[in-house]
Amino acid sequence: MTELPSPHLLFLGDVTNPLDAKTAMGLRDWRPERCIGQYRLPGCAVDLGLPEMDFSEAATAGARSVVIGVAPSGGVLKAEWVSVLAEAVRSGLSLVSGLHRKLSEESEFVEAAAASGQQLIDIRVPPASISIATGRQRSGKRLLMVGTDCCVGKKYSALSLHKALQERGIAATFRATGQTGILIAGGGIPMDAVVSDFLSGAAETLTPDAASDHWDVIEGQGSLFHPAYAAVTLGLLHGSQPDAIVLCHGSGRTSIDEYEDYPVPDLRECVTQYEQAARVTNRVSSIVGITLNTQGLSDDEALNACRDASTLTGLPCVDPMRHALDPIIDALP
Amino acid sequence: MTELPSPHLLFLGDVTNPLDAKTAMGLRDWRPERCIGQYRLPGCAVDLGLPEMDFSEAATAGARSVVIGVAPSGGVLKAEWVSVLAEAVRSGLSLVSGLHRKLSEESEFVEAAAASGQQLIDIRVPPASISIATGRQRSGKRLLMVGTDCCVGKKYSALSLHKALQERGIAATFRATGQTGILIAGGGIPMDAVVSDFLSGAAETLTPDAASDHWDVIEGQGSLFHPAYAAVTLGLLHGSQPDAIVLCHGSGRTSIDEYEDYPVPDLRECVTQYEQAARVTNRVSSIVGITLNTQGLSDDEALNACRDASTLTGLPCVDPMRHALDPIIDALP
Repeated sequence: MTELPSPHLLFLGDVTNPLDAKTAMGLRDWRPERCIGQYRLPGCAVDLGLPEMDFSEAATAGARSVVIGVAPSGGVLKAEWVSVLAEAVRSGLSLVSGLHRKLSEESEFVEAAAASGQQLIDIRVPPASISIATGRQRSGKRLLMVGTDCCVGKKYSALSLHKALQERGIAATFRATGQTGILIAGGGIPMDAVVSDFLSGAAETLTPDAASDHWDVIEGQGSLFHPAYAAVTLGLLHGSQPDAIVLCHGSGRTSIDEYEDYPVPDLRECVTQYEQAARVTNRVSSIVGITLNTQGLSDDEALNACRDASTLTGLPCVDPMRHALDPIIDALP
Repeated sequence: MTELPSPHLLFLGDVTNPLDAKTAMGLRDWRPERCIGQYRLPGCAVDLGLPEMDFSEAATAGARSVVIGVAPSGGVLKAEWVSVLAEAVRSGLSLVSGLHRKLSEESEFVEAAAASGQQLIDIRVPPASISIATGRQRSGKRLLMVGTDCCVGKKYSALSLHKALQERGIAATFRATGQTGILIAGGGIPMDAVVSDFLSGAAETLTPDAASDHWDVIEGQGSLFHPAYAAVTLGLLHGSQPDAIVLCHGSGRTSIDEYEDYPVPDLRECVTQYEQAARVTNRVSSIVGITLNTQGLSDDEALNACRDASTLTGLPCVDPMRHALDPIIDALP
């Protein structure tokens, strides 16, 4: 991937649901040294706690790019944001996007970039050539995150587990599968942008043969129970052939975000269905633990929620943003 | 879709596995009036029973296009076929392809088409704009084919069921989801060419609101148990929200074609897992019958194989190429 011009100004648009700002939050939390400020439009109800800057202030402060930090459903750039972002480019900032629609498809961006000499960088672009999955078993070990829903903490769980493995001296690589993970890691494959016939093949490519004691820690995508995105989840699950799986859940979440008619199944049912699906390509695959996003709960409530999930499923359960991950790492095969 | 120039000469290349020639076979069986002959390279072991013709003979006989009738795994055109097919274009025939790689990406085709004034027609092209699935329940009824594997008779089952419904005076539309079905029907969406985030949305688009007693009969894709293509299967299953499902199986097939390490599960297990997956988006979805591809068996053996599958699963089972489909149609909700 092109080296991203940094530091970044994070663009939040006018989003009101924090779940739509997960790209900005991911960068702030995992690459704070690259985040110089935030830019918000009137009506924006999300606050990253970074300094508010307009484009010329950011450029003066050293920013080299604006990252579109919001990921609305479908990955389409809102029309009213285009002229604002074009102004950023004219102000001397490159533009970085993880949306499906390419920046070069907006003539206003192309003109602004030509005038100011700045770059338009799309990071949600799969490799040009991906093969159909072979189903071949590969050397090395793989740990995949799966979710009861979108936006439940799969990426944070993977990044945290990757960090914890490295702290134990275990060789591990974080494998990004979505736009935010790719921005954080500087590489990866955006699974949801891959043509569906090649999805499992892309997951095989992302997690190649490795040393026998090396762990790929793979960011998850979507959920088997999501009416729009389950195919992405299954293709990633089959192609990555995980030896171990961590199920990620949002505490108290009982229905799919933005699809209120769709219930999140009982955690035991999720474990059963994910293991069943995983065993198509790896017969010994199993869920080794649960991570719970306990945001909004007190420390005691969070501990209780983890204990309840653990009692229900018989699996270790922690919140990776509050608790040590040892119970899950100890359970790895 | 562009009206296809016909009649067609069917190009078989040098394939040896009949399963790789399913596009040619589908056209011969379901649109025989459009198929004037076959073109085979040395080593080809598949015979459609059509007159052998070279390109100038076909043009003289009235052919207006060559259809690439083979669908090798991955949808890539073999290099050695390109110069042969360019010769067809220079001989005055348009070229029709259902492969992933676009005809216009081969400069030899582009030059030949420019010189001869013929068309290069790619039919494996999804609509330019597809939305993310909404999960909304739609009016009308939907009948989806699913398979234990690829190439087990999903398309033939759908076309046969569509015909049988129409013969009973029931309003029905065949919905094509793959290149051969699209060539036969003259329209549809090639699911395996859709960007994976939009897969279920594409299936929703393909099967829109309809009259309450109208049936969409939907061609299936892949198999939940296929290490490369299960994502396509699941996206189609979720987006089409089928009221009824027919499970298609190849008699005696015990492992996935070209993936011999991957077993085909027991039919009861297939029924259970497909119904479980379908009920994410339609809680009353169920498998109503089984179609068995009994090619190679005697009539008695075929009847026995269907009876065995029916006894095992408690569901009606027929071979749509040999038997009446009434037991399955009678089981529709």
